[in-house]
Amino acid sequence: MLIVQKYGGSSVANAERIRRVARRVAGVRAEGHDVVVVVSAMGDTTDDLINLVQEITDNPPEREMDMLLSTGEQVSIALLAMAVKDLGYQVISLTGAQVGIMTDNVHTKAKILNVDTSRLQDELKQGKIIVVAGFQGVNSANDITTLGRGGSDTTAVALAVALKADLCEIYTDVDGVFTADPRVVPDAVKLAEISYDEMLELAHLGAGVLHPRSVELAMQYGLPLHVRSSFNHNLGTIVKEAGNMEKSLLVTGVAYDLDVAKIGLYNVYDKPGIAFKLFKALADENVNVDMIIQGAMRDDRNDIAFTCSQGDLKKALAVVERLQPELGSSGYTSDSGVAKVSIVGAGMASNPGVAAMMFEAISEQGINLEMISTSEIKISCVLKAEEVTKAVRALHRKFNLAGGTSSQGFC
Amino acid sequence: MLIVQKYGGSSVANAERIRRVARRVAGVRAEGHDVVVVVSAMGDTTDDLINLVQEITDNPPEREMDMLLSTGEQVSIALLAMAVKDLGYQVISLTGAQVGIMTDNVHTKAKILNVDTSRLQDELKQGKIIVVAGFQGVNSANDITTLGRGGSDTTAVALAVALKADLCEIYTDVDGVFTADPRVVPDAVKLAEISYDEMLELAHLGAGVLHPRSVELAMQYGLPLHVRSSFNHNLGTIVKEAGNMEKSLLVTGVAYDLDVAKIGLYNVYDKPGIAFKLFKALADENVNVDMIIQGAMRDDRNDIAFTCSQGDLKKALAVVERLQPELGSSGYTSDSGVAKVSIVGAGMASNPGVAAMMFEAISEQGINLEMISTSEIKISCVLKAEEVTKAVRALHRKFNLAGGTSSQGFC
Repeated sequence: MLIVQKYGGSSVANAERIRRVARRVAGVRAEGHDVVVVVSAMGDTTDDLINLVQEITDNPPEREMDMLLSTGEQVSIALLAMAVKDLGYQVISLTGAQVGIMTDNVHTKAKILNVDTSRLQDELKQGKIIVVAGFQGVNSANDITTLGRGGSDTTAVALAVALKADLCEIYTDVDGVFTADPRVVPDAVKLAEISYDEMLELAHLGAGVLHPRSVELAMQYGLPLHVRSSFNHNLGTIVKEAGNMEKSLLVTGVAYDLDVAKIGLYNVYDKPGIAFKLFKALADENVNVDMIIQGAMRDDRNDIAFTCSQGDLKKALAVVERLQPELGSSGYTSDSGVAKVSIVGAGMASNPGVAAMMFEAISEQGINLEMISTSEIKISCVLKAEEVTKAVRALHRKFNLAGGTSSQGFC
Repeated sequence: MLIVQKYGGSSVANAERIRRVARRVAGVRAEGHDVVVVVSAMGDTTDDLINLVQEITDNPPEREMDMLLSTGEQVSIALLAMAVKDLGYQVISLTGAQVGIMTDNVHTKAKILNVDTSRLQDELKQGKIIVVAGFQGVNSANDITTLGRGGSDTTAVALAVALKADLCEIYTDVDGVFTADPRVVPDAVKLAEISYDEMLELAHLGAGVLHPRSVELAMQYGLPLHVRSSFNHNLGTIVKEAGNMEKSLLVTGVAYDLDVAKIGLYNVYDKPGIAFKLFKALADENVNVDMIIQGAMRDDRNDIAFTCSQGDLKKALAVVERLQPELGSSGYTSDSGVAKVSIVGAGMASNPGVAAMMFEAISEQGINLEMISTSEIKISCVLKAEEVTKAVRALHRKFNLAGGTSSQGFC
């Protein structure tokens, strides 16, 4: 078998952990498998480098950020290769550029265009374990690019797809994908399986176990991912096609996101092009708008509300302030003390009652819903940030996600 | 003018120093010159990385050491490029591989074979300041190599030669090349000029201002080097052809090296091949032998003594122990409590009296000489380590290196 493994920053945070990862990798090789290992930067390396930058400039060129940050993974691969070699195995480390991970030119959030597998194939043929720097690639100008936060997941999936690997394991510091954040919901349980769609919603919702782009890529090529812990040998969560699963959960998990700000505009004109004008202007300022609600209040006027990340709030308010006359709005409000709570489940689409159950669970806690947004496989609510824990726990209970028997919570 | 500048690790040890280097570089660009800047790793970065390695393995593969250590310079170039950009100048950082600094395959002490100047020329044509990672290159397998300790000097000289630069400035944390270590000899003076040959002897003698290989390369291509401080704007020391200098100093400087161990063998056979056998065996074990003394004691027996670095003493003693029967030696001694003191000067060759002056100065201090070795432009003595300061000061005084008038110390 050819196995691609990815280890995150916490799995290689110090020398002792690097040696542990080396033993795990060597163990797989000893079983006769070919192994390609993708690693992230050690623990806090990236943050340390960013702190250095802040001492130098407020406005670092993105090309130079990539030049800088890519060193973190280069340190990891060299040290891991040393640790593997120390166990008596043939091993070689390769940077993204050395592998030939070709990307577009968008520094700090580049997309992988192509993976040249020739050197990988060569080194595998020589019986070597290959340790590849995650998160990085190289563009057509031979400049180093990085793939954005969590990009090492994407590197691992892209290598697994390009090499037609039999297995792609994503090692992290938790046991897999849970029905809710175990720090908030102590009886949250690990999911044995989850569909790409659901994982994608959870990834986007900030569950943070897998990078959304890596899930998209795995889905596109039908590559199953095994999300598991590098600190034990437990089976984790398999991310795969929904069709393969025995039964579809009504609700798979509860996620929350505290990085939410809400902006509301009152009494904007109810005529074509108004929403376009607003959201085009926000996009032009690179404000990433998440939920959008528009409600007809009277014949000729609407209220519009939307959410964005707290970091984008200032930019968003400047746009709203500027456009107010054009939109005809009589005023606006903003609130950064809110959060988003979501339930995700592939079985939801065919079960309209799920939304009602969600609202019931939340109202039973006396919590007010400020915004609601739904998709085929998720329902998200905005509520006061201080109510998040109560809401997440209530939803986890309502949909019986802690289980016990499999009869409940399934549709 | 095209100016190549090299800044050492202490010149870029923190954000504030990096910004200072950026201002200096920008100043040169503002005067209308093209600038290529070579930088080393920040301050203690290399030592920190080596400490990490020691937590992982006693025997790191050299290829992976290069993969690891080359990140230090990559961090420096990214940060310096950001700082230069912050001042409003066009700038780009390039790794050794991106420049096309081709080396041989000898990891950790690679030699530069060729510098591809095409990308450098391109970027210069676009008006950019170029910041290049020192100390590193790439071999024909596209693997990262490093040039060994002080290799950034060599990078700077190689780039200056390849680009036919008008000037090559080596910035360091001292004002230039001194007649002796100012920490030992408070009245040591900065030399305005020094010949390649003399600099080479001083570099080899551990004066440490310039890497010997960089001096050899500069000499080979007749490139003058300007060694100066990055902490002020004083003129430093020009390293150039001896022929250009107005007058040749009898003694240019006094150097010392504390990293010396001495081994003596008694009564080895006096027959052809004995020295060869010993020093071949030492070379095979990569013991770098420095001074060798052989004196005829009786008709058929010799004593042989040699010095090596203290780090090589253990390996050297193992060789001596093993070869003793073959060499016929009756015993051996070793001493790591010794040091080497040397005087260097291009005018020395034609002045045999210099050696006598040296021995006189040392004997006046009641210091015993244990070994003596001479070349065309230097005389080295081995003596007890604790006598070094006294000996260096006495020699500096004897040859009137602190000067005052130029009439003394010159020939």
